[in-house]
Order: sequence, then structure tokens, then C-alpha cells
Amino acid sequence: MHKIYLDAAATAPPLDAARTAAAKVMDNFGNPSSLHAMGLDAEREIETARAAVARAIGGKNGEIYFTSGGTEANNMAIFGGAKIHNGARVITTAAEHPSVAEPMKEMVQRGFEVLHLELTQDGLIDPSVLAKALAVSTCLVSIHHVNNETGVAQNIAVLGKIIKDTSPRTVFHVDAVQSFCKTPIDVGAMNIDLLSLSAHKIGGLKGCGALFVREKVHIRPMFFGGGQEGNMRCGTENVPGIAALGAAAGHRIPNLQANHTHAARLKELFIGLINPLDGIEINGENASPYIINMSVDGIRPEVLLNAMSACGVYISAGAACSSNKRQRDDESAVLRAYGLSRKRAETAVRISFSPENTTEEAEIAAEIFMDCVKKLRGNKVIK
Amino acid sequence: MHKIYLDAAATAPPLDAARTAAAKVMDNFGNPSSLHAMGLDAEREIETARAAVARAIGGKNGEIYFTSGGTEANNMAIFGGAKIHNGARVITTAAEHPSVAEPMKEMVQRGFEVLHLELTQDGLIDPSVLAKALAVSTCLVSIHHVNNETGVAQNIAVLGKIIKDTSPRTVFHVDAVQSFCKTPIDVGAMNIDLLSLSAHKIGGLKGCGALFVREKVHIRPMFFGGGQEGNMRCGTENVPGIAALGAAAGHRIPNLQANHTHAARLKELFIGLINPLDGIEINGENASPYIINMSVDGIRPEVLLNAMSACGVYISAGAACSSNKRQRDDESAVLRAYGLSRKRAETAVRISFSPENTTEEAEIAAEIFMDCVKKLRGNKVIK
Repeated sequence: MHKIYLDAAATAPPLDAARTAAAKVMDNFGNPSSLHAMGLDAEREIETARAAVARAIGGKNGEIYFTSGGTEANNMAIFGGAKIHNGARVITTAAEHPSVAEPMKEMVQRGFEVLHLELTQDGLIDPSVLAKALAVSTCLVSIHHVNNETGVAQNIAVLGKIIKDTSPRTVFHVDAVQSFCKTPIDVGAMNIDLLSLSAHKIGGLKGCGALFVREKVHIRPMFFGGGQEGNMRCGTENVPGIAALGAAAGHRIPNLQANHTHAARLKELFIGLINPLDGIEINGENASPYIINMSVDGIRPEVLLNAMSACGVYISAGAACSSNKRQRDDESAVLRAYGLSRKRAETAVRISFSPENTTEEAEIAAEIFMDCVKKLRGNKVIK
Repeated sequence: MHKIYLDAAATAPPLDAARTAAAKVMDNFGNPSSLHAMGLDAEREIETARAAVARAIGGKNGEIYFTSGGTEANNMAIFGGAKIHNGARVITTAAEHPSVAEPMKEMVQRGFEVLHLELTQDGLIDPSVLAKALAVSTCLVSIHHVNNETGVAQNIAVLGKIIKDTSPRTVFHVDAVQSFCKTPIDVGAMNIDLLSLSAHKIGGLKGCGALFVREKVHIRPMFFGGGQEGNMRCGTENVPGIAALGAAAGHRIPNLQANHTHAARLKELFIGLINPLDGIEINGENASPYIINMSVDGIRPEVLLNAMSACGVYISAGAACSSNKRQRDDESAVLRAYGLSRKRAETAVRISFSPENTTEEAEIAAEIFMDCVKKLRGNKVIK
């Protein structure tokens, strides 16, 4: 049976370049803190990866701190970056990934006022709404770049300029887990102070990510220990994960535009092929080409994804993290935040591409998708 | 040139079994939170590893929470396990790894009273000293099992019994990073509530560890997000690291006793061979056979380790983490905590074995060690 993986927004297939980089530091396995030759070799690998990540977002090497992934980076940005003496208000949206949304609940416990900006039905922030919210003294703004469920991309440059112009002391955090190496990022031009990214969404390995922290921005670390990462993130560095992240970023960045065009072709192809189906609504206008979010009338998303999984095609119900077995919601909080109907929010599935997906895969997947939808609509009706 | 790695306490060579396990989940790379077949496969790999780790310490599967390493596990145990309403006192020692020692400094900032137990010159805790310290209401005791610099092993079973008998509400945390899979651990018999371990010290990969949390003990998580690890440690799981940890533990545990005997032979052999040298003092009586800590009169440790590194033999000055390039101390805090002289503390080197080291390696290394010491003593005198 073929195996067509269309769930790259949950996790992407590791790139050969990433696996090779990880294998190299498993062979020459020194601890970067060791003073002998093998320790120095390991340290050099980390610095090479750091430079690759810095280059990918237009930051400086010294502004990159490796973490265990996007969740840690987001937690570190929020808990470390919000300082109540700069204002008790924290601004975010109701369409954030759980690794931002859940820390925000904790922030309320810690005495902050968390304000969720209203979103348009297209999932976008109206810049004037942000400007108004900043009138109250605000220590942190935390907003996603590309949404993990819908692919909707905020106009970070515009939002960054508003923050900088109206409230220069406010720290601007961007969750770029879904945009890193897929959509151009320039932390300077976009006025970003903190930026979270993850390795395994771009063909690196799970268990590694990074937080960009602008040079003059000071945040508090979450861990304390042996002084690694300039004391910002202690613990023996995940050298295989870091080397793989650097290799993946180095592989992705020169191909960013070509990959973007390819993903757009896959998305257009897939949507075109399933066009004969009734009762399909695409969620998120102008979303990233890497993600298709659509509501499929009459079918529970997990039933559809199970049927497709049985045919060797892997897609997601909403987002992997929020459709988690461990805390299953019946509807997508993201789509509800867009003001879409409950019915539309509880019938959403997500298809997400990696640059390695082929047009042939998109064609086969579309065919299987149509077969599954027709079959399930014949059998089952959503309550 | 040969390459003899005798710095396994800093990081150990990854085992083939661990690398194979990691490679398998890089091939079948699903996100454990995904509902499709590849997600379920990944979840199964994690549960297999969890069972292997639980078995290795006599815990239950549901008591194991995977982390990004020993440092995160130690931070999580201390910040999450200490609850001021159970007593403001926290008991520890001055010979802890920086990933315990540094969080303890932060604990003082957070209003706790941190008491450092006195140690004997052999690095041990006198049980009666602990019993006395517990007279004041204590929320947490955090003590290492095997010391990372000297290999000295605390009698955890005795200490655990004292805590349980005299202060049953006190949470007992054991940093077992250096003992896991090397010295028998039974969290039940030893009355351990929280136990930290690391993958890369036993032939797993860097970037992965675990915290054992006894079923009825409640600690606060440090991260918030998508609900992974029963909401105790959110973030997409480091599946390659976790699979490798499970494989490494599964490989080590059946050979624990044989490996222990082998390490003891290596240690005895090495110490015997360098016996002709004057001015060598072994630090830590009855230490783990995996670690030799010795003060080498007249030579700065980093000079000796550089000389040996140039000959292809890799050892450490004190501990990798505390002899870190980034926060270099001139003397070992651990040896000072044992009450040893400053001179002895600032001339200490550490040799540490993995079970894969051969007697031939120990012989060659001892010869090179003697050559280096003689040569350096001819050239250089410590101030």
C-alpha cells in the first residue's frame, strides 16, 4: 500500500541532511562543555547550527537559544518575557497554539491581565484593534505568524511596526513554529523581539527548537544549571537535535521560494480535484500554501481521518496538538475564534504538505479523500 | 592515533541499540499526538520506552515523565516538588550538580530556607545529621545518589527511610543521573518520591531524560501546552530520544552487575598502573567504580587534560558541567564540600568509564597519563 503523509504541520519527515548531521555527532559524541578535543568538536557543531538558524531569520548568532522544542520556546518567551513592571497587560489571540494558550491561563493566575484580540472571519488581526489594545500599558504581545490549524498568516511586519511605534517597551513575541523556513522571516524588519521555532516541523528532529531573543531584550530563564546557552537555557545541549536543526534550516532556506511555489501548486491541485464534492468549505482565506483547512459537512473529522489512515493517507483533525487523544475537544477553538459556526468548527480537517510531497501524492490523496467522503456520507450523518 | 574516551560521566558513547531505536522512529516519524496510524505507532514506541525506564528503577509506567534531560528533570523536581505550605525548609548538600545547586539559589529568592547538610571527608551524609535537619518542617530533600565528580554513592535507602519515618510529608528527590543503570535503584525500597535520570549518560542520546514522580506525589509542571505526558510535561515528545533511552535502559539493566564488575576491574587496573607516580590522591573512598577522581599534585587539571587530549585520551577536569568553559571555577565545589584542601580541590581530574571501555584502553590510558604527568611536572609547577 502507498503511504502518503499529509500531516507535516503536526510533524514532518526528517530530511536526509538532518539525519546525517545527527549521525555525525553521534559518532563524534563529545559533551560541548568538555574541555578536550571531542568537547570542542561538539561545541563547534552547535555554533555552526546556531549560525544557520540565525541566518534563516535575519538574527545574530548570539540571539539564538536552543530549547527542547517550540513548546518550551513559547513558554520561555511568555513566562520569561512578561515583566509586570512594564505593564500588567499581555495581548494575544484566541487562535494561538496550546503552547501559548495554556501558558496564558497560567499568566492570569500570576496576576497578569490577558487580552485576546478579536479576529476577522479570515483569522486576521485588524491592526487598529491592536493599536487600541496597546493604549493600556502592555508588557508582552504574543501572536502566531502562521496559524497551526488554518495556515492563516498574520501580517507580522505591520503588527510589529505598530507595537514599536506606539509602545516601544512592549516585548513582541512571535510563535513562528509553522512559518520558520516556509515563509520569509526577518526579525529586524518585522520588529520581533522573541521568536519561537521548532526543528521537527521543517525536517529536523523532535525534541529541539529555539528561541530568538533580541540582543537588548532581557528575559528570565526557566532552568538553572551548568551555564549552557549563556545561562539562558542550562542542560547538556541536544547536540544531535541541534545539528539536525541547523542542517534542516540550511537545506530549507535556499529553497524557500521554490518550496512555497510547489506547496501552492499542491494545494491548488488538491482543492481543484475535490471540487466536485458538495459541502466542503475552505477555512482561512489567503492561508499558507502548506496548509488546507476545510470543513466537511456531515462527517466527524476523526472518522474521516481514520478512514483515510486505513487507505494509507495521513491527515489531521484540526491540529494534532489540540485534537490530542489526551484532551480531545469537539470543536476547533481556532475556527471558533474566527467567528465560524460550531458546525463548521467541529467538522474541520487539516491537510498539510511538506516540500517533499509530490503532485502524484496530492492526486492520489484527493481521489482517496473523495472516495472516503462519499462512502462516509452514505453511511453516517453528523449529529 | 587511538582515541580512548574516559569521560563517560560527562556523556557516554551512544549504544548501537539506542541509535537503531532512534533511526526506527525517524523512518516511521509520526507525531504521538496524531490520531492516524503513524501517530499511534509513535505513541506505542514511547510507551515501550516508558515501560523500560519504569522497570529499570522499580517504578510504574505511569510514574515516568520524559523530559529534555537531567537538568530539566532536576529543575522540575525542585521547583515543582517544593511546596512552601509543607514547610519552608529544603534540605540538600553542597556537593550537588549545578542543575540542583543553581535551582537551590533560586529557591532562596523564592522564600525557601535552603539547608546544606554537612558531608564527611568521604563525601557522605551522616544519617543522624539528616534526621536532625528534618526537625524543622521540610517540604523537600534533594540529594544525589552517585556524585558526578567523585562517584561517591550516598546510602539512599537509609536516607529515604529516615525521611519516611520522621517526616512522611517531606518529598524526597534523588538526582540519579550518574547512578541510573549503573547502580541498583529501587524507588520503592529506597522511599524515593522523585528521581531524575538522563539518557546520554548511559548510551542514549543527549536531549532526553526523565523524572519519576511517585503516584501519590503531586508536583507542578514547568511547561504548559498540548497535554502531552499527562499534562505534566507538554510539548511534542522527543520520540527518537525517548526510544533511544528505552533501548539503552533495556540494554544496560540485564548487564548492570557484570558492567559494575568490569568497571571495578578497569578502575583497579588504572589506579594500580599509575601507582608509581608520587603526589596522587584519590578523592572519595568507596566511590562508584565508574569514576576515578584524583588530585594530581603540581599540575593544573586543564593542562593535564589538554596534554592527554593531544594524545587521544579524553578525561575531565572535575565535572564537565562545572568545569564548563562558560563558568570556569578554579576549584571543585564538590571537593571543597568534602572539606578537602583548596590545593586538592583545584588539582582534581576525573576519569570515568563506560562499560564499553576495554582493559587495553585502561592500560594505554594509564601509560599516557603517567607520561603526561611526568612531562608536565618537569615543565610546570602549580602556583
